[in-house]
Amino acid sequence: MPTGRSPVGPAPLRVAVSGARGRTGREVVAALEADPGFECVASIGSEDELGTALRESAARVLVDFTTPASALGNALAAAQLGVSPVVGTSGIPASGIDRIRDACQGAGVGGCVIANFALGAALLMWLAELCAPHFEGCEIVETHHPGKLDAPSGTALRTAERLLAARDGRAFGHPEPVTTPLAGTRGGSLGGAGVHSLRLEGAVADQSVVFGAVGQTLTMTHRTTARSSFAPGVLLAARAVAENGGFFDTLEAVLGLPSAAEIRRGMGSSTA
Amino acid sequence: MPTGRSPVGPAPLRVAVSGARGRTGREVVAALEADPGFECVASIGSEDELGTALRESAARVLVDFTTPASALGNALAAAQLGVSPVVGTSGIPASGIDRIRDACQGAGVGGCVIANFALGAALLMWLAELCAPHFEGCEIVETHHPGKLDAPSGTALRTAERLLAARDGRAFGHPEPVTTPLAGTRGGSLGGAGVHSLRLEGAVADQSVVFGAVGQTLTMTHRTTARSSFAPGVLLAARAVAENGGFFDTLEAVLGLPSAAEIRRGMGSSTA
Amino acid sequence: MPTGRSPVGPAPLRVAVSGARGRTGREVVAALEADPGFECVASIGSEDELGTALRESAARVLVDFTTPASALGNALAAAQLGVSPVVGTSGIPASGIDRIRDACQGAGVGGCVIANFALGAALLMWLAELCAPHFEGCEIVETHHPGKLDAPSGTALRTAERLLAARDGRAFGHPEPVTTPLAGTRGGSLGGAGVHSLRLEGAVADQSVVFGAVGQTLTMTHRTTARSSFAPGVLLAARAVAENGGFFDTLEAVLGLPSAAEIRRGMGSSTA
Amino acid sequence: MPTGRSPVGPAPLRVAVSGARGRTGREVVAALEADPGFECVASIGSEDELGTALRESAARVLVDFTTPASALGNALAAAQLGVSPVVGTSGIPASGIDRIRDACQGAGVGGCVIANFALGAALLMWLAELCAPHFEGCEIVETHHPGKLDAPSGTALRTAERLLAARDGRAFGHPEPVTTPLAGTRGGSLGGAGVHSLRLEGAVADQSVVFGAVGQTLTMTHRTTARSSFAPGVLLAARAVAENGGFFDTLEAVLGLPSAAEIRRGMGSSTA
Repeated sequence: MPTGRSPVGPAPLRVAVSGARGRTGREVVAALEADPGFECVASIGSEDELGTALRESAARVLVDFTTPASALGNALAAAQLGVSPVVGTSGIPASGIDRIRDACQGAGVGGCVIANFALGAALLMWLAELCAPHFEGCEIVETHHPGKLDAPSGTALRTAERLLAARDGRAFGHPEPVTTPLAGTRGGSLGGAGVHSLRLEGAVADQSVVFGAVGQTLTMTHRTTARSSFAPGVLLAARAVAENGGFFDTLEAVLGLPSAAEIRRGMGSSTA
Repeated sequence: MPTGRSPVGPAPLRVAVSGARGRTGREVVAALEADPGFECVASIGSEDELGTALRESAARVLVDFTTPASALGNALAAAQLGVSPVVGTSGIPASGIDRIRDACQGAGVGGCVIANFALGAALLMWLAELCAPHFEGCEIVETHHPGKLDAPSGTALRTAERLLAARDGRAFGHPEPVTTPLAGTRGGSLGGAGVHSLRLEGAVADQSVVFGAVGQTLTMTHRTTARSSFAPGVLLAARAVAENGGFFDTLEAVLGLPSAAEIRRGMGSSTA
Repeated sequence: MPTGRSPVGPAPLRVAVSGARGRTGREVVAALEADPGFECVASIGSEDELGTALRESAARVLVDFTTPASALGNALAAAQLGVSPVVGTSGIPASGIDRIRDACQGAGVGGCVIANFALGAALLMWLAELCAPHFEGCEIVETHHPGKLDAPSGTALRTAERLLAARDGRAFGHPEPVTTPLAGTRGGSLGGAGVHSLRLEGAVADQSVVFGAVGQTLTMTHRTTARSSFAPGVLLAARAVAENGGFFDTLEAVLGLPSAAEIRRGMGSSTA
Repeated sequence: MPTGRSPVGPAPLRVAVSGARGRTGREVVAALEADPGFECVASIGSEDELGTALRESAARVLVDFTTPASALGNALAAAQLGVSPVVGTSGIPASGIDRIRDACQGAGVGGCVIANFALGAALLMWLAELCAPHFEGCEIVETHHPGKLDAPSGTALRTAERLLAARDGRAFGHPEPVTTPLAGTRGGSLGGAGVHSLRLEGAVADQSVVFGAVGQTLTMTHRTTARSSFAPGVLLAARAVAENGGFFDTLEAVLGLPSAAEIRRGMGSSTA
């Protein structure tokens, strides 16, 4: 995936990273340093003063992978300083995202809050939304390492919610068994979409969405083999907020793709 | 999958089937008879006179699963009689499709020529087109029963062509090995997309498209378990040509979905 | 898979089928008729007198696909007449299987009671048993058509039981989540093996067993595309009971494979 | 996976590692240090004198991940000093393995030469061997990162060879297409088993073996998510050579599993 183009021409994009000593932050710093289109101008830890670091580094973008509590303040402070925030910290409530959006628009800078920057995870959700109206049955299966604290994953939950919205709330069929020789095997259900959480050593973060129709199934699967899977998405977003100036809350928007709702609404049948 | 069956009101759609004694034709007849929104008004074999059958049955749509040689004539004849052709016969050249389109538009009737009516196969190609610009590596794996005469499948070939077009001709990276202890295992390549054909007893017609990016893969798989998998698509198309009056050459158009090219072209970034 | 060998030499094996008008029975009759190594000498329905049919047809084997209530009596009657029963009817209790075994041994004929004759399903369970002691985590995912009445499938339940037995009752690790934003997604658990049941139009009868270890997963998947999947196993069993004269309660025994327990017990380390 | 760590009693097993500064060697050292059943007593690099290091550290086992040229000499030297070699370096010719085996037996110490220590990869090959005689069609699909220099992988090639041997040389059916609109898609073939090599960013080292039969397929898939996947196998082997004193050339032997050939040969049918 091409991220930082222009190896020669324009100057590299100046990016600061908050949470730079954390596991994810370190990967972002490494990805920025490996791409000639970017320059990592500040690695900000919890002991550093954010405003000072942003001013001194002349950063144009702040990538934040900290905690929900810190991320909101960091993003608002960045926007006020004319620095575009790219927030990957998960767990920020909708109201917080609205405040960041408002701050960015008030300051006339781009911004971005996205919970899962993995390119394939974002595309998987978007593709599944596009398919959801055309099938009557759906099962979501996510597989993560045994140490994961929540089940289902936030991505699986959000996927189920988005599939239901893509059907205008019309539930999938969800067949219930008559006899259950072992309890609970039908898993969770959200809007009729089955949700199943597997926990296995050796898995990182995988998700499948399976649709069924007469005589066929259609399966989409995102598999993760390294935590660096989110890094290209972060770099794409940093480039987008700097060049485009808009506010993005999905990775597909960063990619220039219309939302599933726009595709359904804005585009009639393509007949001639 | 909703096939538009009109629960109470309107009369069922009158559909004739040519090639009705063939394996596929019989499935179409059965699907029409099972759906109260449709009425199969003529089962036309090679010994029957098509024009007479269409006139006497007052069919509004002709579904054709015959041979490339017969299908073109049947579709043109139907259009001239004001009957909308829905052609599922594969192997009709592009020039033939153009002639059918012109005949339909000249007669003011809807029409449709689609080589693969399986809902999941059509969506798979369309989804893969949408993803193609965002990944640098792609492998296509199709699995069919051992009796299949061609390799790769027509669908795999068309998929590879459409992926390349979706990238404006920019080839995928296609790593070649330095040592090849067994020849030929890298398979075929079209525009850098690897193409692999598996032939196994027990398989019907499956296809996977796998994209790779940093630390992750995204896989889409269509699996067929019964030849009836194409029937819902045929019924959707019959309904669409009758009600919409347009001409459709992809199943995604029948579903009211914009083409991948329209999505890329017509829709700017969804920023606010 | 070679079943009825010797197209020329020995006479074909004479097989009667009870439940011959049922969906499964008809497939058995068709498979027998298609294989020159077998002769279907009696198609017995519920209105026929079994003993008379067996005597008049000089059958050597009776294949039974009826109901649990009928199957036991049929198998006992066949054994008494010196005809080897091959029972595929599921739902016969363990005590009934013991009675059939005793009757066969008393009469000096071979016999067989197997709940799932699909070759791949039997091998999947056996392979998973062989692996079970060597992994600490396991998840079973079965996918069936929406009309299936039970969840989990009998095969999934039996698989979990056999995996646990293969570990001498030592449970797999089964990580429980701390937070559950949607209830029930961890599915069922038997001996720590997760069990997940998917129900989708377009699926026939699939099962996966996934094991996890450091940095890797090992998955075994059986997929069914046609109900005829059990037929080769039935023919193999008919041949085995007639030629071998033993009693078989697993398809792997029919295939001449040692049980997983025998492999663990009877064979020391293969060092030199 | 239990690595035999001896919760209370016995002293940890003293292990030296040659190639300890290499990528794999470092992982071995880390795994030894993380497991209380082991003590890493020497990390030997190319600049160190092996004999001295082994004597001074009082190692009982030498794990070697160096180069084919060094590994043979290292293993022979270790055996002469009464230290059991566990060689994971790949590319040692059969004659070299024989020399190591002879040296170990001459010295009365255990030993081990295994090309792929990943538990799941070893089990996959062994399971596929067990299945091979019972199916008439087989396709092998391996997926690796784009930087891999060989295609197919050594494991895929060895798998195909072992499957063929498990059938006593009887080839699988390998359907060839009549028309090939794109060349080469049927991949490689060894003994009728199709071999397909995919190369994708985001993949580490995956392999699937797919068998087909009437109405069904049976698939086994090993997926790697981290290079550390081989470490548990190395520790199991170190334990086995020290405690058992035998010589092992497969990981399944280390696991105490009989070879597929022993299972076929030594065990009659399990009838009663």
